[in-house]
Amino acid sequence: MTLLLDNADVRRVLRMRDAIDALDAAFVDYADGVAVNRPRSHTYTHRGGARHYLFKTMDGSVPRLGVHALRLSSDLTDETGGKRIKIPAAPGDRYVGLVLLFDLETLAPVAILHDGYLQRVRVGATSALAAARLARKSARVVGMIGAGWQAGAQVDGLREVLDVEEVRVYAPTRGKLEAFAAEHDATPVGIAREAVEGADVVVLATNSHQPVLDGAWLAPGTHVNSVQRHELDATTLSRAELVVVRSREEPTFHFAPGHAPRAARDRQLEDVVELGDVLKGLVGRTRDDQITLFTGGGGLGIQFAAVAHAVYAAAREAGAGRDLPTEWFIQEEKP
Amino acid sequence: MTLLLDNADVRRVLRMRDAIDALDAAFVDYADGVAVNRPRSHTYTHRGGARHYLFKTMDGSVPRLGVHALRLSSDLTDETGGKRIKIPAAPGDRYVGLVLLFDLETLAPVAILHDGYLQRVRVGATSALAAARLARKSARVVGMIGAGWQAGAQVDGLREVLDVEEVRVYAPTRGKLEAFAAEHDATPVGIAREAVEGADVVVLATNSHQPVLDGAWLAPGTHVNSVQRHELDATTLSRAELVVVRSREEPTFHFAPGHAPRAARDRQLEDVVELGDVLKGLVGRTRDDQITLFTGGGGLGIQFAAVAHAVYAAAREAGAGRDLPTEWFIQEEKP
Repeated sequence: MTLLLDNADVRRVLRMRDAIDALDAAFVDYADGVAVNRPRSHTYTHRGGARHYLFKTMDGSVPRLGVHALRLSSDLTDETGGKRIKIPAAPGDRYVGLVLLFDLETLAPVAILHDGYLQRVRVGATSALAAARLARKSARVVGMIGAGWQAGAQVDGLREVLDVEEVRVYAPTRGKLEAFAAEHDATPVGIAREAVEGADVVVLATNSHQPVLDGAWLAPGTHVNSVQRHELDATTLSRAELVVVRSREEPTFHFAPGHAPRAARDRQLEDVVELGDVLKGLVGRTRDDQITLFTGGGGLGIQFAAVAHAVYAAAREAGAGRDLPTEWFIQEEKP
Repeated sequence: MTLLLDNADVRRVLRMRDAIDALDAAFVDYADGVAVNRPRSHTYTHRGGARHYLFKTMDGSVPRLGVHALRLSSDLTDETGGKRIKIPAAPGDRYVGLVLLFDLETLAPVAILHDGYLQRVRVGATSALAAARLARKSARVVGMIGAGWQAGAQVDGLREVLDVEEVRVYAPTRGKLEAFAAEHDATPVGIAREAVEGADVVVLATNSHQPVLDGAWLAPGTHVNSVQRHELDATTLSRAELVVVRSREEPTFHFAPGHAPRAARDRQLEDVVELGDVLKGLVGRTRDDQITLFTGGGGLGIQFAAVAHAVYAAAREAGAGRDLPTEWFIQEEKP
């Protein structure tokens, strides 16, 4: 059978610790040239004005887990005013994002998962892995900017890997900030600088297209996690002695002439190292006063393979999800 | 609802003429920079010995039809002896290949199709489009090498676009050859040269990794269709004054260091023009004694969008397939 798992199923069975462990192994295998990744691709079709249909995919194998994953999203984007938003144009104001998990032995799809909740845990767990290796051993105070969708998973992840004593959080919308602080046992602060100054680990978890901090606020020895690079300022980038990314492989962009979306014009960061090499101990923090940075947007196929496998295994054990006949998705004819 | 269509459904509703017309429009839109294509990617995971797990995808939009398609295949390949075969390792000795068709407006998947039969018609219809423009108007005799899976669709396609009076076919396995000739109203011949010499249109439809003809056999003015370039010899390539491919965009290959599959080492053809430009009349046959060649393996996302849309529209009209709740594949959470 092929297991269909919606976000409620994923939320029920996926534990942050399992995601962190699965990703740890997957990144090491990737660094070792065992796990194989196909960088994500973005196909943009112009839909008039500042709108594009965006079809995004990435895929990758983690042989240790016996799986290959494809993640796809089918989105409508709007770049009016320079900021890109995704419009829930699917029936019932919904989004379309799925992970298809294939078995390396039987070739068949073993699971089809909604990617929303999984994606959030993937990002939080990966940031946690980076912080576990790059933050100082004595790190106790987390300063966070952002109180949205991604921010909660960032806190959950850090609490799995560090002895967090305090989380200070800033977000511009007061009500959202206070609700987040209450839910995540964090201290709300009134300005971004208050969250950042004196923190051992700074987390940026916003969808801002402008820098949300001044890198001058960072204390020596801080580790910074950022979920997407537009929220970083040039000072942070120049003060960071070690910049770590998930992968140096670059995504691809496909669009009709004259309709290049903003994202396709972003420059890549230079002088970066890969997370897998950090996890293997080949590179890392060498002094307590170094500023380190883990950043980068967009996932890797191997991450979806690792986390979707963790979800699948837990769901099978819990009896979660809906079984679909695998025969629906396999064929006698050789294509 | 999302329509699930297996090969029997596709075979029931897909007409060669509809595929040809849909592809014609899609290639012109692609040449015009309206249809958008993401070249196919191959992710190879080493499985020991000469075996690789191969996950292949490609995607593309045809705005005129309002759809975006993703085609994926999950295969086990074996390159023992230098010839690559696909092993039906899925349950019940099956293969895994699907087309997912998305609506550009609603973002949702409107259909999930088995790709086997569709793929065969796609290749035959595209070859027919090329022959319709590149063969001489007086072309009547088709010489074919190959009597397998792809060959039948090649004959069906040519008969839609040319006044075919005779089809001569050669294949090394006598029983297969005779069965094919009987089914497709063709004349079986005993050696490859007999099929090729004097033919107006030569079709190579084999999975051979070695040349299956000597280009010296080709009469001046012949148009050659080849489903994959390994079956072509150097003489054919050098005698062809015009070489047409589906796209100059190159596929990508992803694999672990030291495990490059053979396909990743193939050189691309040079000095080629794209089919869309031929269909638009920008380039084409200029003399009756020219040899022209349409070749290239592997599909384009836009081709799957065009043909899958034709299947979907015909299936809705015929009431074919199985309706699945679209809610299964869409979500409230923003990924």
